[in-house]
Amino acid sequence: MKLKDIYESQQFSVELLFSLFKDADEIRENLEKHHSDLKGKLIASLFYEPSTRTRLSFESAMIKLGGNVISTENAKEFSSAIKGESIEDTIRVVSKYADAIVIRHYEKGTARKAAAVSNIPIINAGDGKGQHPTQALLDLYTIYREFGRVENLKIAFVGDLASGRTARSLCYLLGKFKNIEIIFVSPENLKMKADIENYLKKHNINFREENDLNKVIAEVDVIYMTRIQKERISSRDYERAKGKFVINSSNFNLVKESSRIMHPLPHVEEISLPIEIENKDKRIAYFRQSENGLYIRMALLRYLLM
Amino acid sequence: MKLKDIYESQQFSVELLFSLFKDADEIRENLEKHHSDLKGKLIASLFYEPSTRTRLSFESAMIKLGGNVISTENAKEFSSAIKGESIEDTIRVVSKYADAIVIRHYEKGTARKAAAVSNIPIINAGDGKGQHPTQALLDLYTIYREFGRVENLKIAFVGDLASGRTARSLCYLLGKFKNIEIIFVSPENLKMKADIENYLKKHNINFREENDLNKVIAEVDVIYMTRIQKERISSRDYERAKGKFVINSSNFNLVKESSRIMHPLPHVEEISLPIEIENKDKRIAYFRQSENGLYIRMALLRYLLM
Amino acid sequence: MKLKDIYESQQFSVELLFSLFKDADEIRENLEKHHSDLKGKLIASLFYEPSTRTRLSFESAMIKLGGNVISTENAKEFSSAIKGESIEDTIRVVSKYADAIVIRHYEKGTARKAAAVSNIPIINAGDGKGQHPTQALLDLYTIYREFGRVENLKIAFVGDLASGRTARSLCYLLGKFKNIEIIFVSPENLKMKADIENYLKKHNINFREENDLNKVIAEVDVIYMTRIQKERISSRDYERAKGKFVINSSNFNLVKESSRIMHPLPHVEEISLPIEIENKDKRIAYFRQSENGLYIRMALLRYLLM
Repeated sequence: MKLKDIYESQQFSVELLFSLFKDADEIRENLEKHHSDLKGKLIASLFYEPSTRTRLSFESAMIKLGGNVISTENAKEFSSAIKGESIEDTIRVVSKYADAIVIRHYEKGTARKAAAVSNIPIINAGDGKGQHPTQALLDLYTIYREFGRVENLKIAFVGDLASGRTARSLCYLLGKFKNIEIIFVSPENLKMKADIENYLKKHNINFREENDLNKVIAEVDVIYMTRIQKERISSRDYERAKGKFVINSSNFNLVKESSRIMHPLPHVEEISLPIEIENKDKRIAYFRQSENGLYIRMALLRYLLM
Repeated sequence: MKLKDIYESQQFSVELLFSLFKDADEIRENLEKHHSDLKGKLIASLFYEPSTRTRLSFESAMIKLGGNVISTENAKEFSSAIKGESIEDTIRVVSKYADAIVIRHYEKGTARKAAAVSNIPIINAGDGKGQHPTQALLDLYTIYREFGRVENLKIAFVGDLASGRTARSLCYLLGKFKNIEIIFVSPENLKMKADIENYLKKHNINFREENDLNKVIAEVDVIYMTRIQKERISSRDYERAKGKFVINSSNFNLVKESSRIMHPLPHVEEISLPIEIENKDKRIAYFRQSENGLYIRMALLRYLLM
Repeated sequence: MKLKDIYESQQFSVELLFSLFKDADEIRENLEKHHSDLKGKLIASLFYEPSTRTRLSFESAMIKLGGNVISTENAKEFSSAIKGESIEDTIRVVSKYADAIVIRHYEKGTARKAAAVSNIPIINAGDGKGQHPTQALLDLYTIYREFGRVENLKIAFVGDLASGRTARSLCYLLGKFKNIEIIFVSPENLKMKADIENYLKKHNINFREENDLNKVIAEVDVIYMTRIQKERISSRDYERAKGKFVINSSNFNLVKESSRIMHPLPHVEEISLPIEIENKDKRIAYFRQSENGLYIRMALLRYLLM
């Protein structure tokens, strides 16, 4: 059954994932061919939380397919939310103006609430501590492109796994594939939560925990880095943690030639490499990953709107 | 004579109103036919005050007609207004970039000042305590669609009538029609002001005041609800007022089957009905009303720009 | 050699300047002919500092050439800058979404840093106390249109010359032409800085300083006014300065009929003339100057993107 809305990564079947990956590959090769696929279609970007990157990526995807965009980058302050209007009412109204809504919101579950009252597709572009399913989609697409497969892979998630929604959303997708092994590498108080671990158990995915990246860095195929948010741990813990969740010149050489470093971006000091390495070493996959977002979102918009 | 600018609802003649209503009806039925009516035309949205809803409605209308949009949602903070530039100078400059300007401003009279120096159409999208003429237009268009007529109607305006510009703008339009009876239902200190009452007298429109919605709810054809702004009345007055200016499960059944509840939205607790009723009962007209805004704005943009 | 990026006004050769002026003139005359020159092209507006005027001017230019726009008017607050991402990383990502980036930033040198990592054109729309090269371009284009030449001219720069980047950027351009004489008219502590003066000496441009506009007002061809920022000088100095750096009804008559008053806008009390004079006297060039910005930016976008 075709999906109407995208609110969480579990919704994607393996079949749909591969179909989107193939479409994204094809679009990238034949961009010109698709320049009016969504002519006459209009998306509304409703962003209640900062995210220039994600918003511009969706809007660029829509425009490159010949579609149009109406947009607010500060819905929290400027929309009727400050007057106390429910998100459902906002969606009821805006859904009459456009053919799909891309929504980012500070509250978990908002995209699903929006989908329930909308007659047009709702795409979750991040809902608080909930999910960010199109980020998971572009992450998995990147793995697919870098390795030519989405199985028989060992993946380390590194950093703040307790609150980072990108790692959570990607785990839901990885649960659908074979021979995946996951290693969670995080400070004691920022560990991956039980709900994801239970999900992985249920899907027979092997996983374990580590508290030092260097112990696993040479062993894994994918190192999925995320920001450690300093303000979330004590400065004593932070000092102890420093260097254990970071890639820099000292441990970068331990990374296998065939391995890839991914990051949802923006990255700060958790990756501290010379600019030449970031620009040229093929193990650095995160700028390609970000570019992949454009093509996979084009594929997704076509899937939902054509 | 054709209007160049739209700054107040009085400007619309009865003839023009019906012509716009008919165009809006026709556009709605033949959307595809109009997809390049305004090709090559460009509007600038200058919003000095929050209003995602109104802004997106105009921008969607423009895009669905094949036109383009340049836009600022926070002109107050980001434009040269903070450097002390006069609105006239801003308009002189922006009017060279676009074919029409849609402006919302926090000061009454701004749209008219803008129109005076602009060589392109200025559309008032709300000017402080002044008017919001396209809201009045969509309100009247909704009455026209729901009842098939704009005469022989009894209309209650409910809530804060002292500062709500939508009720004021709609009264100006209603003054142009026959056998209209108006009932103003508001707390003592939020009554409709004398200027509107004088206008109605001059146009031989019957009106009276009430201070309890339940006294008139069964009698009127249209219940035009507006938000009571708690912060504008004392909490003692508010406690007394509560329930007198609200539609909820207790008094909704008093509303005639042929009557309609309208609201400029966003609504908060002044309408507290179960979601099934809001979604399905035909007496709830405010979501249709909001959608009507799209089509009547398309008609208006065509009128001004074609 | 064709320029890839525009980060400072020195980059423009005399040949390129005249070529852009001629293109701008031609575009203005045959607007319709160019309505799909940039069809399928997309620019990203990244504004880290307020500037509705400049942003809308670029976006209008792009749209009038058939191109598209993705845009943020508040990148400082809403982008990953607040999470500590480097401007280089932001550019690496956004440069995958668009065909050119128009950037305004609060830090001098940002556009150049952006250009260094971008594979698409970067256009500086103002970088802190650095430059604003397209403003200089439209300023010079205005001189070209008003006088039919860019030589044998006496030009007074008036106001805050220490921090105003428009005067600085225009001086760099003027240094490329013959028989230019410049008079800097500013309060003692807001004088033009040594770097520009050295540049002018090197290029054999005559310049001198004055501290009273009225001493030179009858003598010059161009009076380039800029805002005196009250908050930057003591109130005692400001009181003494008042009237010395202002054009009003008392000294306007001293301006030659063939001379022109220019201003980058917005202007406040440094120009205090009756509205009829601002609207009709041909010596008032600043609204034409602002409109010229649209056409010269169209010419520049064509140069960079076609």
